[in-house]
Amino acid sequence: MAKLKQLAELVGGDVIGDADLDICRVAPIDQAQSGDITFVSNPKYLGMLSACKASAVIVAPGVDAPGVNLIVCNNPYLAFARILTFLQVPERVMRGVMAGASVAESAVVDKAATVYPGCVLGENVSVGSGTTLYPGVVLYDDVSVGNDCILHAQSVVREGCQLGDRVILQPAVVIGSDGFGFAPDGQSYYKIPQVGIVVLEDDVEIGSNSCVDRAALGETRVRRGTKIDNLVQIAHNVDLGEDCILVSQSGIAGSSKIGNHCTFGGQAAIAGHLTVGDNVMIGARGGATNDVESNQILSGLPLMPHKQWLRATMTLPKLPEMRKEMKQMQKRLEELETLLKEK
Amino acid sequence: MAKLKQLAELVGGDVIGDADLDICRVAPIDQAQSGDITFVSNPKYLGMLSACKASAVIVAPGVDAPGVNLIVCNNPYLAFARILTFLQVPERVMRGVMAGASVAESAVVDKAATVYPGCVLGENVSVGSGTTLYPGVVLYDDVSVGNDCILHAQSVVREGCQLGDRVILQPAVVIGSDGFGFAPDGQSYYKIPQVGIVVLEDDVEIGSNSCVDRAALGETRVRRGTKIDNLVQIAHNVDLGEDCILVSQSGIAGSSKIGNHCTFGGQAAIAGHLTVGDNVMIGARGGATNDVESNQILSGLPLMPHKQWLRATMTLPKLPEMRKEMKQMQKRLEELETLLKEK
Amino acid sequence: MAKLKQLAELVGGDVIGDADLDICRVAPIDQAQSGDITFVSNPKYLGMLSACKASAVIVAPGVDAPGVNLIVCNNPYLAFARILTFLQVPERVMRGVMAGASVAESAVVDKAATVYPGCVLGENVSVGSGTTLYPGVVLYDDVSVGNDCILHAQSVVREGCQLGDRVILQPAVVIGSDGFGFAPDGQSYYKIPQVGIVVLEDDVEIGSNSCVDRAALGETRVRRGTKIDNLVQIAHNVDLGEDCILVSQSGIAGSSKIGNHCTFGGQAAIAGHLTVGDNVMIGARGGATNDVESNQILSGLPLMPHKQWLRATMTLPKLPEMRKEMKQMQKRLEELETLLKEK
Repeated sequence: MAKLKQLAELVGGDVIGDADLDICRVAPIDQAQSGDITFVSNPKYLGMLSACKASAVIVAPGVDAPGVNLIVCNNPYLAFARILTFLQVPERVMRGVMAGASVAESAVVDKAATVYPGCVLGENVSVGSGTTLYPGVVLYDDVSVGNDCILHAQSVVREGCQLGDRVILQPAVVIGSDGFGFAPDGQSYYKIPQVGIVVLEDDVEIGSNSCVDRAALGETRVRRGTKIDNLVQIAHNVDLGEDCILVSQSGIAGSSKIGNHCTFGGQAAIAGHLTVGDNVMIGARGGATNDVESNQILSGLPLMPHKQWLRATMTLPKLPEMRKEMKQMQKRLEELETLLKEK
Repeated sequence: MAKLKQLAELVGGDVIGDADLDICRVAPIDQAQSGDITFVSNPKYLGMLSACKASAVIVAPGVDAPGVNLIVCNNPYLAFARILTFLQVPERVMRGVMAGASVAESAVVDKAATVYPGCVLGENVSVGSGTTLYPGVVLYDDVSVGNDCILHAQSVVREGCQLGDRVILQPAVVIGSDGFGFAPDGQSYYKIPQVGIVVLEDDVEIGSNSCVDRAALGETRVRRGTKIDNLVQIAHNVDLGEDCILVSQSGIAGSSKIGNHCTFGGQAAIAGHLTVGDNVMIGARGGATNDVESNQILSGLPLMPHKQWLRATMTLPKLPEMRKEMKQMQKRLEELETLLKEK
Repeated sequence: MAKLKQLAELVGGDVIGDADLDICRVAPIDQAQSGDITFVSNPKYLGMLSACKASAVIVAPGVDAPGVNLIVCNNPYLAFARILTFLQVPERVMRGVMAGASVAESAVVDKAATVYPGCVLGENVSVGSGTTLYPGVVLYDDVSVGNDCILHAQSVVREGCQLGDRVILQPAVVIGSDGFGFAPDGQSYYKIPQVGIVVLEDDVEIGSNSCVDRAALGETRVRRGTKIDNLVQIAHNVDLGEDCILVSQSGIAGSSKIGNHCTFGGQAAIAGHLTVGDNVMIGARGGATNDVESNQILSGLPLMPHKQWLRATMTLPKLPEMRKEMKQMQKRLEELETLLKEK
């Protein structure tokens, strides 16, 4: 619980209304009750303010809502996220290495860390302060995990991989599995040893059941602040820039280099050995088969400007009809040609 | 082993032939041997009856097969499934909490449940009667699992999530991982805490390595009887109706609401914040980018009626040729126009 | 460390230059330093040889590089892989069943095997010589694992499934989960018991978070030497041939039969109950909806020859423009027709 003025201070906003109000919870605008704070970041929902039962609302400057207690700030969505964290996320209590965890003698686990039952930590592993390893986390030999990380249940980090600070792995993430590399040997395939590693820089988050493969040689790197959703594939030797967003079931093939601030939609894909610039948005199920220059919004396979793709796909259902019309036109053309020849 | 008449009774069918025959096993029609029962649900396989070595065959009414022992019933495929269950699925023996499982003191596990080694159950967890947790299942704090559930190895249910009765999780399913929500903060992304839960209602089944994310606020819900295949993504705040079928590698983005009796093919996708009605079939790799009304069979991206999509995609390979023809037609048009002007 | 001549002998190649040179490491051509060996398999990189700092280079016959120590052999890429294995992959030390593993009494684990903490092995399991089970591997009852296999952390093999020799499972692979089979029962679905198994033949490798479902009846089989990448779905009763390559996020639906030496690109898919011949390449995101004959390179949905697909997709962005032009042509045609009628 907090006073409305405390929350305003937390997010650098101003209170309009009762600054001493007690706020207990954050709720969506259509479910909020007395004691709740809610937010409006999209102007089209401002009409819901009058019927809203929340005790207070976070809004952008310029909103007129007489009789409603407001926190006015520049980024209501961000403010909502910060207040939600403050009010509803319990502080983690660090419990040390719990019974039922298996930790190699040479592993170093900070005292202010938590290792749940069922975790297995190999030789020379290091785990930083404030980090939590939920049940069933497996760290192979020589893995290092920084401070204030959260590794959820069943996530696996294979040998030698390095995680920075504040990294979050959702359950069942696999970091450092072998890259998919084989040398054809006549009929069969010879496995190319994958002796590189994976580096996840600070503030990276990876979703459930996603995979980041270790490099063949050298490293696969996911740079600071990048967020990866569930069931995403990052292949060996990929270099993925800072503050990127990869939506669920997307994938990046081997050795591709992605710039900063890129966003790839669900089921999108980047072929191997490509270079993608900064600030590239690729729509859901888009597929890059060539290098992509910076500052573009693209969709489709092959990629094209998003607006062009919208038009192209709107035309797609009309293709059979177009084909039919073309055949009719050809007939008419022929008739005209015959007619003219005759004259 | 059972008498043929017992099996007929089980499925509400009638015996034609030797009702006292002993049946040991269920087998496909082309592999069945003496002692086996098989089935024909598709009339095009009726021709195989004469060569079939099975001791008995489950068929629909109206099948004429002199000399073959039959169970005649309205739904041979369903009858096959029921008889298979009866003859070949061993009853589960409940063994209690086995050595090597880690159960918090406040957790309540019914006596008629099984918890295998390597399971970890957090505070205030409840596990119902007849439920089996295979090795490595992790239930975070405050999870409730109903009666007669099967949670296969390595499946994870995060804090506060609720599973009804007869829920089946295949191995490595993740329930309740954080939804993918971030508030842009200038250059970087601020994590929006995901403080909601997941509810899986009765008779839901979820396939290997599939994920159902917890809600940001409120709940993600999968309703009674819905079956989800492997590697499927259900994002935060989705509301997925009753008796739906989601085939492998499909995905539903955040906050979408799906009706009852929908079927989504492999790799199909539903964008975020959409409403899909009841009885909607979306073909493999179809993609919904707008709301979808009830009672439709659709395919493609964008979605279109399935038959139209079939025609459109059949035309696709002819596009380059069409373009070439169009250019030729344009030339011919110009020639005609010139000719006519001259006249 | 090895002498250059030793390495040449290992790969059946010839040394040009200093055969007694000491080689410590394998490195990519642009990062190699003194003491390293590197390779050139693609002639377009031969220009980098002059600036390369490696002590030696593996090349194909006919390369002219004065002053550079060379191993000359027919398949430099394969030679690189073999030398990398020799120089950099440490031999596995077998440690037996370690404390913290749970092994049923009736399970038979070869003395020359390793079972890490957190593994759980059911009744009648057998594990062969030279096999390593990393932490958290779960083998259900009656599973057999051959010799020299590597099962990485959290991989699961369900009841009765059989793995040959030298099988590799990357972390969190699921073998033998229930196939996705349900019989409609009016409104709801009745689960068809999946009582078959999975067989992985010798030298199969399966990537992280991939799934191979058990058969309804009979078996799902992945044949010798086939390599499967991460997040791939193999449905029940699939028969997947020898020496196939399935790239990440691809999938094969139920009961399809795939020949030998097939390669399926990322996110490609094969519908159910199809037959695909030998030596079929399907490009990334290609989708087979009909049987496919041997010896073809195909792409798209529906599948078409790869080159045709390239042309068709290059035309796609021009569709709206084509439609517009067609309407203009129709107008012009009408005008001509009117004109001619008048004359």
